[in-house]
Amino acid sequence: MTTPSLLGPGAAVLAFDVGGTDTKAALVDETGTLIEITRTPTPLPPTGTEFAVLDEVDRIASGLRAKHPNIVPTAAGLIVPGLVDDEAGIGRFSENLRWTNVPFRDLASERLGMPVSFTHDVRGAGEAEYRLGTAGTFPNAIVVVIGTGIASAIFIDGKPYAAHGYAGELGHSIIVPGGRICACGGHGCLEAIASAGAITRRYNTDERASLPVNGARDVLQRAKDGDALATEIWESALDTLALALAQTVAMFAPDAIIIGGGLSQAGDDLFVPLGERLESHLTFHRRPQLLCAGIGENAGLVGAALKARDLAALTRKDAEA
Amino acid sequence: MTTPSLLGPGAAVLAFDVGGTDTKAALVDETGTLIEITRTPTPLPPTGTEFAVLDEVDRIASGLRAKHPNIVPTAAGLIVPGLVDDEAGIGRFSENLRWTNVPFRDLASERLGMPVSFTHDVRGAGEAEYRLGTAGTFPNAIVVVIGTGIASAIFIDGKPYAAHGYAGELGHSIIVPGGRICACGGHGCLEAIASAGAITRRYNTDERASLPVNGARDVLQRAKDGDALATEIWESALDTLALALAQTVAMFAPDAIIIGGGLSQAGDDLFVPLGERLESHLTFHRRPQLLCAGIGENAGLVGAALKARDLAALTRKDAEA
Repeated sequence: MTTPSLLGPGAAVLAFDVGGTDTKAALVDETGTLIEITRTPTPLPPTGTEFAVLDEVDRIASGLRAKHPNIVPTAAGLIVPGLVDDEAGIGRFSENLRWTNVPFRDLASERLGMPVSFTHDVRGAGEAEYRLGTAGTFPNAIVVVIGTGIASAIFIDGKPYAAHGYAGELGHSIIVPGGRICACGGHGCLEAIASAGAITRRYNTDERASLPVNGARDVLQRAKDGDALATEIWESALDTLALALAQTVAMFAPDAIIIGGGLSQAGDDLFVPLGERLESHLTFHRRPQLLCAGIGENAGLVGAALKARDLAALTRKDAEA
Repeated sequence: MTTPSLLGPGAAVLAFDVGGTDTKAALVDETGTLIEITRTPTPLPPTGTEFAVLDEVDRIASGLRAKHPNIVPTAAGLIVPGLVDDEAGIGRFSENLRWTNVPFRDLASERLGMPVSFTHDVRGAGEAEYRLGTAGTFPNAIVVVIGTGIASAIFIDGKPYAAHGYAGELGHSIIVPGGRICACGGHGCLEAIASAGAITRRYNTDERASLPVNGARDVLQRAKDGDALATEIWESALDTLALALAQTVAMFAPDAIIIGGGLSQAGDDLFVPLGERLESHLTFHRRPQLLCAGIGENAGLVGAALKARDLAALTRKDAEA
């Protein structure tokens, strides 16, 4: 599978997007084309997941390089979920992937024999959206990714703001105090109410549900078909999202809010009522543009490739100096 | 009245803090001492308030300069409430002072015959707290001022983040959707529930109130004395503040939150339960230091003087170049 070039010309690089379920990888050539994208289950042994993940990354890299000997990557980009300290190159914590304080940047660099750029999955995808997608012309923007969970990447004056990995946790902002319990242990976090994962789970675990749904898309469809439970869940997700965005607007006043992830595929069914409800909460506040992410499901890989190319350019510059 | 020098040595400047009720002004000498602080009612004619305010600023400046002929200010700092665009030097909007799009920086500079630095009152006070008070060693910090209203000043990587004056409006972040109506027209804004002004108003307008209170301090005292209404109002203010701070922590992950304004004078009665309630909302989040503002009631004037000195230094540098 080859995807058209968003990245444009630059160094050939490897890109890895380690997710809670699957690990995606790509080899990117000098035209910026994602030559080959692989998708394999993320290894989840009872212990030592970080080493199994690094083995898997190494194995994929060898496979891609062997298959495309004419493309010589000079750097790699690795993105992972959880709490990530970009500056230190450390995966601080992942509940799903069960690791604590793993120096991924250095370990991956050793395995792959090339410099590795390391960041958080949503910040990586957010950077791709911000630099190459719909968000690029706005100095201050927030990219919100709504999928299994909810997280965001913040850009201030054109630069990512991460606060050592702790910033942008919109999914773990408590919107309904004392509300539904969240995977993080909090009560009433946005993610526990309005993520695609929560919308699905809320439907399937409700005793009023007739047949189980396969995802948030089904809940939306049932709501449109008049299912009362689906309507209730979909509406409350919209209300809670709108409130969280209004709070974000009051504090950040971003030029744009870009929404990506699985839920953004609902299109107008999401964006129209969300925009209306957000507007209903605003008075003198600055109105952000509310935009749908443009890059799609490979935003993480594209972001990892972008960061790898930044690093390759820097490394080359250093070598030349 | 003379206050000790927080500012340290630098240019002699004039500082003006135009409030909804009073206008405070000071002449600052080269040691950084606020030589004389004046306080006069802010003129509030039915129309043209901006011109009346500028006349008053000019009058105060002449008075201070005449009285202290040996201190020659080379710049002035002016801070006002409402929506303020620092970069453009424009007061965008003030409901209380009834103005729209007034180019205060240029108008004041013309009147006073010296360069004028112009900013928002809470950002000015916040900058004083950030640079001279308890917040100074933290790269990312938020100074929240809780008085008649609630506003905040955001510092990211040591620099103010204002988004043309729209950022930091924590007071107009909706915490209780559909809740109490706010002066801004919103429903359930933090300011309408938890500002010192709201705490006082909520008590005095409740039919259960025995005798009216003079301020939030009285509500706190009555709560400590067992008054059920006062307890209910004080507790709900604490709960709502804690929730708003938890939301801020999730998105910004600041190193410190500094609370100033009238309500901060409640000391441990505010900070201890607020810290506990904030903690109860956090899971993996980064813990900010929760600090009481250190500069006190003249923070606005000190901030205006700081900004005036920045400008004086810049002007001198330009002249030397």
